[in-house]
Amino acid sequence: MSHNTFGHLFRVTTFGESHGPALGCVVDGCPPGLALEAEDIQAELDRRKPGQSRFTTQRREPDQVRILSGVFGDDRTEGRQLTTGTPIALMIENTDQRSKDYSEIRDSYRPGHADYAYEAKYGIRDYRGGGRSSARETAARVAAGAVARKVIPGITIRAALVQMGPHAIDRSRWDWDETARNPFFCPDAQAAARYEGYLDGIRKDGSSIGAVIEVVAEGVPPGLGAPVYGKLDADLAAAMMSINAVKGVEIGDGFASAALRGEDNADEMRASNDGRPAFLANHAGGILGGISTGQPIVCRFAVKPTSSILTPRRTVTRDGQDAEIVTKGRHDPCVGIRAVPVAEAMMACVLADHYLRHRGQVGSV
Amino acid sequence: MSHNTFGHLFRVTTFGESHGPALGCVVDGCPPGLALEAEDIQAELDRRKPGQSRFTTQRREPDQVRILSGVFGDDRTEGRQLTTGTPIALMIENTDQRSKDYSEIRDSYRPGHADYAYEAKYGIRDYRGGGRSSARETAARVAAGAVARKVIPGITIRAALVQMGPHAIDRSRWDWDETARNPFFCPDAQAAARYEGYLDGIRKDGSSIGAVIEVVAEGVPPGLGAPVYGKLDADLAAAMMSINAVKGVEIGDGFASAALRGEDNADEMRASNDGRPAFLANHAGGILGGISTGQPIVCRFAVKPTSSILTPRRTVTRDGQDAEIVTKGRHDPCVGIRAVPVAEAMMACVLADHYLRHRGQVGSV
Amino acid sequence: MSHNTFGHLFRVTTFGESHGPALGCVVDGCPPGLALEAEDIQAELDRRKPGQSRFTTQRREPDQVRILSGVFGDDRTEGRQLTTGTPIALMIENTDQRSKDYSEIRDSYRPGHADYAYEAKYGIRDYRGGGRSSARETAARVAAGAVARKVIPGITIRAALVQMGPHAIDRSRWDWDETARNPFFCPDAQAAARYEGYLDGIRKDGSSIGAVIEVVAEGVPPGLGAPVYGKLDADLAAAMMSINAVKGVEIGDGFASAALRGEDNADEMRASNDGRPAFLANHAGGILGGISTGQPIVCRFAVKPTSSILTPRRTVTRDGQDAEIVTKGRHDPCVGIRAVPVAEAMMACVLADHYLRHRGQVGSV
Amino acid sequence: MSHNTFGHLFRVTTFGESHGPALGCVVDGCPPGLALEAEDIQAELDRRKPGQSRFTTQRREPDQVRILSGVFGDDRTEGRQLTTGTPIALMIENTDQRSKDYSEIRDSYRPGHADYAYEAKYGIRDYRGGGRSSARETAARVAAGAVARKVIPGITIRAALVQMGPHAIDRSRWDWDETARNPFFCPDAQAAARYEGYLDGIRKDGSSIGAVIEVVAEGVPPGLGAPVYGKLDADLAAAMMSINAVKGVEIGDGFASAALRGEDNADEMRASNDGRPAFLANHAGGILGGISTGQPIVCRFAVKPTSSILTPRRTVTRDGQDAEIVTKGRHDPCVGIRAVPVAEAMMACVLADHYLRHRGQVGSV
Repeated sequence: MSHNTFGHLFRVTTFGESHGPALGCVVDGCPPGLALEAEDIQAELDRRKPGQSRFTTQRREPDQVRILSGVFGDDRTEGRQLTTGTPIALMIENTDQRSKDYSEIRDSYRPGHADYAYEAKYGIRDYRGGGRSSARETAARVAAGAVARKVIPGITIRAALVQMGPHAIDRSRWDWDETARNPFFCPDAQAAARYEGYLDGIRKDGSSIGAVIEVVAEGVPPGLGAPVYGKLDADLAAAMMSINAVKGVEIGDGFASAALRGEDNADEMRASNDGRPAFLANHAGGILGGISTGQPIVCRFAVKPTSSILTPRRTVTRDGQDAEIVTKGRHDPCVGIRAVPVAEAMMACVLADHYLRHRGQVGSV
Repeated sequence: MSHNTFGHLFRVTTFGESHGPALGCVVDGCPPGLALEAEDIQAELDRRKPGQSRFTTQRREPDQVRILSGVFGDDRTEGRQLTTGTPIALMIENTDQRSKDYSEIRDSYRPGHADYAYEAKYGIRDYRGGGRSSARETAARVAAGAVARKVIPGITIRAALVQMGPHAIDRSRWDWDETARNPFFCPDAQAAARYEGYLDGIRKDGSSIGAVIEVVAEGVPPGLGAPVYGKLDADLAAAMMSINAVKGVEIGDGFASAALRGEDNADEMRASNDGRPAFLANHAGGILGGISTGQPIVCRFAVKPTSSILTPRRTVTRDGQDAEIVTKGRHDPCVGIRAVPVAEAMMACVLADHYLRHRGQVGSV
Repeated sequence: MSHNTFGHLFRVTTFGESHGPALGCVVDGCPPGLALEAEDIQAELDRRKPGQSRFTTQRREPDQVRILSGVFGDDRTEGRQLTTGTPIALMIENTDQRSKDYSEIRDSYRPGHADYAYEAKYGIRDYRGGGRSSARETAARVAAGAVARKVIPGITIRAALVQMGPHAIDRSRWDWDETARNPFFCPDAQAAARYEGYLDGIRKDGSSIGAVIEVVAEGVPPGLGAPVYGKLDADLAAAMMSINAVKGVEIGDGFASAALRGEDNADEMRASNDGRPAFLANHAGGILGGISTGQPIVCRFAVKPTSSILTPRRTVTRDGQDAEIVTKGRHDPCVGIRAVPVAEAMMACVLADHYLRHRGQVGSV
Repeated sequence: MSHNTFGHLFRVTTFGESHGPALGCVVDGCPPGLALEAEDIQAELDRRKPGQSRFTTQRREPDQVRILSGVFGDDRTEGRQLTTGTPIALMIENTDQRSKDYSEIRDSYRPGHADYAYEAKYGIRDYRGGGRSSARETAARVAAGAVARKVIPGITIRAALVQMGPHAIDRSRWDWDETARNPFFCPDAQAAARYEGYLDGIRKDGSSIGAVIEVVAEGVPPGLGAPVYGKLDADLAAAMMSINAVKGVEIGDGFASAALRGEDNADEMRASNDGRPAFLANHAGGILGGISTGQPIVCRFAVKPTSSILTPRRTVTRDGQDAEIVTKGRHDPCVGIRAVPVAEAMMACVLADHYLRHRGQVGSV
């Protein structure tokens, strides 16, 4: 994994700033012969697109993707475009680059944002909309994830928002179909209703709130992953932690495991007819020793509240003076909502990468 | 990061199985001119060594390290050994390889262990003591971490066990010196006393228990880390999740951030005399946008209970029959204890890697 | 180095096919604060551009580059664009995609081309203009090379065509300025005159001819490179061999070294005033033990004749029938000519990469 | 490829200095289930071992290899050791570390050696026997190559010394069996006889001489390799150029291609019965567009004369004074001879790496 590249065999390199001419990615390592049209990618991008409800930023970006390379079709493929095994470059042009006054964030560091850290590292930063540190970069991830899904067709990947601020879902009411019916990707209709009022209050206060997202992959064959540093869970942890505003990641029972006794935690097995053990529980979240067991892979992560809020905060300026700052503009009151399709994309990329490693039965990358 | 390699510029490749002839690592990328003796490494290994109290495995391994390459000294260096910039190979020979009867774990999969996953992946596994999936591999990490500390001399890295089963420490009693006085690396003397009785009970029950470890790095300069996939917190998450039995990782406030509002989460700043902002809180755990801010880096992770327990568990055999298994042998009732020095080593390796990246101001690795 | 990525710390990922929508690259790892405008890149691309004389392909591509990310400027930078340390994406749209009849190369493998090899590997290929295997990809390399030159400002990199078919230059007449005065990048005016008549003959015969290019880097500080597999000469060999149609690479005396005795080959040294040894010869081509010595780096490579010729050649079809093929179209009679700016770009990329490694004094990448 | 690591999926990391305690390697990525005993590796090491004739260094090293990890066997494998998919660590202890006076090479730079370059890079060097820059490192490569051969069982890899100083072999007399009958790995008995007298003369003069080695791989399936920077020939070029003292590499016709016309260079094809084209020539050396065609892969490289000679040479000291130096000790008069098994090992490693990439049909590494 390198600074702007994710994955090894299925390798995604993203580029672009929030307010630059374009953002996008190069997907290297996609196997040949997979059907891939721009619409396949667009469908995923549309799920993440801002401005779809009053609960996400009102920035209006069509996020139209263009495939620049790596696919080919002719009459032999009946007009369908197939991947060719060469790099797939995807580009999304930025269209809603409001020319606004950036003087405040140019000179002051927004608390909770990467402003000071970038300045300390590089001595220069593109402050317009947060530049490279903006969650806008995740559009490129979602585009790459749409390609990744093609690589692992038998695997179902779904994510949901399971906690918003103090409000957690009731797991007994979990219904995946529900996630498409409310603007929160929430799998519990009653919780979704509660989120609505709650988030309206947050929004009106000019504040923001954190969230927990759960992403589940079903149909993963046993054997994906590797010892010791190529563990599937280690790669998932890095993948999720690399999403903007994420502060914690867990697999299976996660932090709750700390309070468990050995006999409660280890998933027992019984013989089954399909040649694989039937596990009697899934505390492990589908991964043991860094390798998938065939059970559903369950990963959860915490997203901190959006740092851009309308409440004035104390900060310092670039030249070291005390200041106050209010981050105006069009912000997500709960950035965790739009992290849901991003989580699916990252899960898809990690699994595509490990699937290719396992297919070649390779012990190194 | 590759399957048995960790890091990019400070790159550690480990090898070895629990009951093979030897384990060790090759550290590539250590800068030249650093004083390094076997004793520097041995001191760290001794902190992790088994058999130091009744609360860790009674396996008796001296874990004596040997430096095979990468250092040199003569009269010009006044007899001290210095690193030369070439790879440093470290070897620890296995001495306590009890010849015992492995027939049970050879044919049955231990619940909670990697047995089935390895078999599914490779079709073969060295089952003696868990082979490559044994936590014995972490001795090599600790050795590498001792080298990493040399690379970042101004940084203090310390870890502590902050929760054992249901028992958490009282943070108001935190005393780093206390971690050296009890067999649990616990920073709260009263909690340590409570752990003692509690763990004796667990041990007598033939059971095991989980734990939470917190690792803190102080003196980290701002600017370490990188967008977007080379984030310092993403690398830390992978590092900690790659330790045996770890199921969750968090930075700063971690999962608690999900319940915070924007104005409570973002750390405000005031001007200070040293040219850096003075942060008024550290909810972020020292990292924003994947880059260090100069505040202490705070990372916590959860360790599940040891899967090797004396309580009979249901499982299946290699040829698909139902069976019961009891994992006899010398096991840690709380594997989280010995994870403490391992956590420090991983933090040191991650920081050494990012320190070298930042020193060269490189945007890619 | 990975399949479509070159370099480690200065890392270039290229994408695009000969007749797809666009080609380009993502440059990751460029340090921040370097002035970079599209014109800087365009100037290099224009040297490689086809259709500048009757001796290169008549395909008319403007090869207009667009910077999509990674630079930023405002009034603080006085309107100049500076690199920000984030990935620099460069795009060149393909405009001259003649809609022609590709049926012949669709079904038959052109001898000397990658047609059969791609088909054997991927089972599918974009045959239009050679797809990904076209030398058109080298436009992206030249664009990346223009960025690389910014990273190593004190180093002068120049290349020249020193042999065309049987005609070699006379080294005593070497004049770098001459390379800009003839269409062959030839440093010997008399040889250039000879090339002209010779290549006219080749062109009229519907044939093609090979060439040797020499690329020289002056001002390289000692210490770039690394043992054992990160050798500067090993990276240069891979870089040059990765250019289309290259079949051999040598450093310094190269193959002639095989006939030398020890006392003739090893470059003796004398003390000098600048603190570095003064070498009395440069048989080594500026590299010893894989590390630069401060002498000029001298690298030569051989380019085979263009495989696209008007002479009918025997081949087989995709479904295994004997066939004859004539490669019509607009081809370079000596593809070595346009390889000259590509060679400079690859040298610049290799040196920028090693310069960053050395600046951070890193032993691994 | 990183500084002390070679390959991606079949990845070899070497360590060790000429006069340190041990040298060796870690082979990561070897597939599971391959039979591997120390004797398999020892057999290859014995071919490279010094002191086997008067034409190689008289240093007497048994070069005894020990497998430290990555293999396992029990009654189920009938006592045979199989690879397990985990890293294979190999160690060779140095036994013949003559305690001699190194003061001369400690303070003066030997012309043609890496002494000055290492000092310029690292500011420190292990000068005993050349330290890390010694060709002794190639023992680790040969050991790794023995493992690589297991991965690609259907491929035959052989190398030969085809030119020594001014004396080239007669290709019409090429006999692979002959390479085992003379101390030069020469495939032409008459040339071998000529080498003998010639090299005796060189040796008595206290001089040394260069050589050309040719390495051929037969049975390579089509499809190994990849565009654009993962080309099989680019990786071979880097592999061979990374061997000590190599100054040039060529594939197929190599530099001779520069003088060829298109119709003479491109290998024509005819239909055949085995489903692959039958090539009518092999100017390409088995590689087109960076991908194997199924023809034999032919690679040649030039080795410069040993820089350690008994003739006094002019040099400078570490503190910048003029000096004269004579490199005493036990040196190979033609270091190209012992490069022959090393060349085979590097070819095996490159092919094993690309074989695994192709098996998983991966486009990236």
